[in-house]
Amino acid sequence: MAASKCSRLNGELSRRFLASVDTVLFDCDGVLWRGDEAIPGAPDLINGLKRANKRVFFLTNNSTKTRSMYAEKLGRLGFKAEPEEVFGTAYCTAIYLRDIARLKGKVYLIGGRALSEEFGAAGIPHLGCGADHVTGTQKDWASVQGDSDVKAVVVGFDEHFSYMKLNRALQYLQDPSCLFIATNTDTRLPLEGGRAIPGTGCLVRAVETAAHRKAQVIGKPSSFLYDCVVKDCGLDPARTVMVGDRLDTDIQMGSTCGIRTLLTLTGFSSLEDAKSYQDSGALSMVPDYYVNSVADLLPALSEERQ
Amino acid sequence: MAASKCSRLNGELSRRFLASVDTVLFDCDGVLWRGDEAIPGAPDLINGLKRANKRVFFLTNNSTKTRSMYAEKLGRLGFKAEPEEVFGTAYCTAIYLRDIARLKGKVYLIGGRALSEEFGAAGIPHLGCGADHVTGTQKDWASVQGDSDVKAVVVGFDEHFSYMKLNRALQYLQDPSCLFIATNTDTRLPLEGGRAIPGTGCLVRAVETAAHRKAQVIGKPSSFLYDCVVKDCGLDPARTVMVGDRLDTDIQMGSTCGIRTLLTLTGFSSLEDAKSYQDSGALSMVPDYYVNSVADLLPALSEERQ
Repeated sequence: MAASKCSRLNGELSRRFLASVDTVLFDCDGVLWRGDEAIPGAPDLINGLKRANKRVFFLTNNSTKTRSMYAEKLGRLGFKAEPEEVFGTAYCTAIYLRDIARLKGKVYLIGGRALSEEFGAAGIPHLGCGADHVTGTQKDWASVQGDSDVKAVVVGFDEHFSYMKLNRALQYLQDPSCLFIATNTDTRLPLEGGRAIPGTGCLVRAVETAAHRKAQVIGKPSSFLYDCVVKDCGLDPARTVMVGDRLDTDIQMGSTCGIRTLLTLTGFSSLEDAKSYQDSGALSMVPDYYVNSVADLLPALSEERQ
Repeated sequence: MAASKCSRLNGELSRRFLASVDTVLFDCDGVLWRGDEAIPGAPDLINGLKRANKRVFFLTNNSTKTRSMYAEKLGRLGFKAEPEEVFGTAYCTAIYLRDIARLKGKVYLIGGRALSEEFGAAGIPHLGCGADHVTGTQKDWASVQGDSDVKAVVVGFDEHFSYMKLNRALQYLQDPSCLFIATNTDTRLPLEGGRAIPGTGCLVRAVETAAHRKAQVIGKPSSFLYDCVVKDCGLDPARTVMVGDRLDTDIQMGSTCGIRTLLTLTGFSSLEDAKSYQDSGALSMVPDYYVNSVADLLPALSEERQ
């Protein structure tokens, strides 16, 4: 099994692969786009898959957009997409709190507008959005008045993250019954030109370090985004593939869920990273296949349609 | 050896212990005070040790005060102390950059006024102090203009810690030749009444997670504060003891430096924590002795002086 892993997908193998697949799950950042630039050929691939009657879903750890905002960005970059095809951590965290945790109470939210909107749509009361600058002295920080209805702390991407937010999270989390949820733990957000900015994982580690607790993580490599797709839309695992640029999130999640995995080299992880996991026996982070770019599948797709 | 560790220091054992010691190294937070309240009896002990011709030094991971500010606080709470007896991480980080790293360039400092003052006194140019709120978009954050003279990032306690500071640190640390120093990694700062606020360790973990690098740590359990005492003042390790409230910092440092160690139970670690380390064989974090409070040594001290 190990020997057949991490095969380059091209030629006849690509054609057989596409014929064996009904449902394709795509990560977004580093797979379909970098920052605000589409990966060349990626829109043609997505739109072509749909014309070939494949189902396409977008599974993203990034919590800065609602389902509608993602559909709008996908459309702007040339991808045909509907909000109901998007399973991002802003939406899925709201679903988790409403349907799985059945939260009775408010959320203290370290996060941005998209999380706030998805929480609002799911009927989850929350507070904490926007700037929260420090004032006063250490003694004041330790005795900040919390809202006694807060029963969960959620950490997502928040460009207004501050010492004061970290402190409020600690004060809430000292109650062991307070839930502690992270949208995702990606360490960096890759942008155009190889640049990067700190990801949500940095904020999660800060809060975990203060609270002496580990957060429960909604995003990949957890299977929860996949579970949401299965629940809402159904799928046949034997005819489904996860396409992503990160071995420790996208590929690991695919392995956990028992579906095939495809690494694309336009984002975070390299082929050397995959070989290194293969050599060390960490096979759940080794993809079944890899391509240099998702556009590499275009020739096989156009042949399949002829 | 293990069986004789973690003995309660009282009665005759206290008297023999004090007679065997010339130099006493004290941690401060949780040992001599909590927040702005002295531990009852602690000032009498420090002042009594000095009258008995013991040398006393203060070794603190807390980077929010200069040597002078610590001497002032010690004095205000009733302790006799001179700035030259204080070896805090604000001062010792400046000494490290000047004398060990021999830094040629500027420091990007995540830290407060005390670090800035000690850096200034040591002639180390630095920038970054004060509030730094986020503006613009992700693309702007990834392309923030750095100062090309910055050759080190230092992370200490900073109540103005923000996403923008985290981002600036990441942009500097992407250059592998940029030094990465942390004053300390304490996860919480204990205050009066059992309350706590997030410690420098939370900020360090956030920056480490973004940078994909580990910081070099100046504070305990590193031996650098001890090395500074030895270099400036000299001491006989066989007649020196480290007194602290944290097993993973104070007691570990004492063990590393080959001096005796005394845990006091007025702060972070409990006797159960020490027994647990003893049972698991992590003996470098098991103290030689413990007391409920440093004030427990007062009777033996007054007898010694008679």
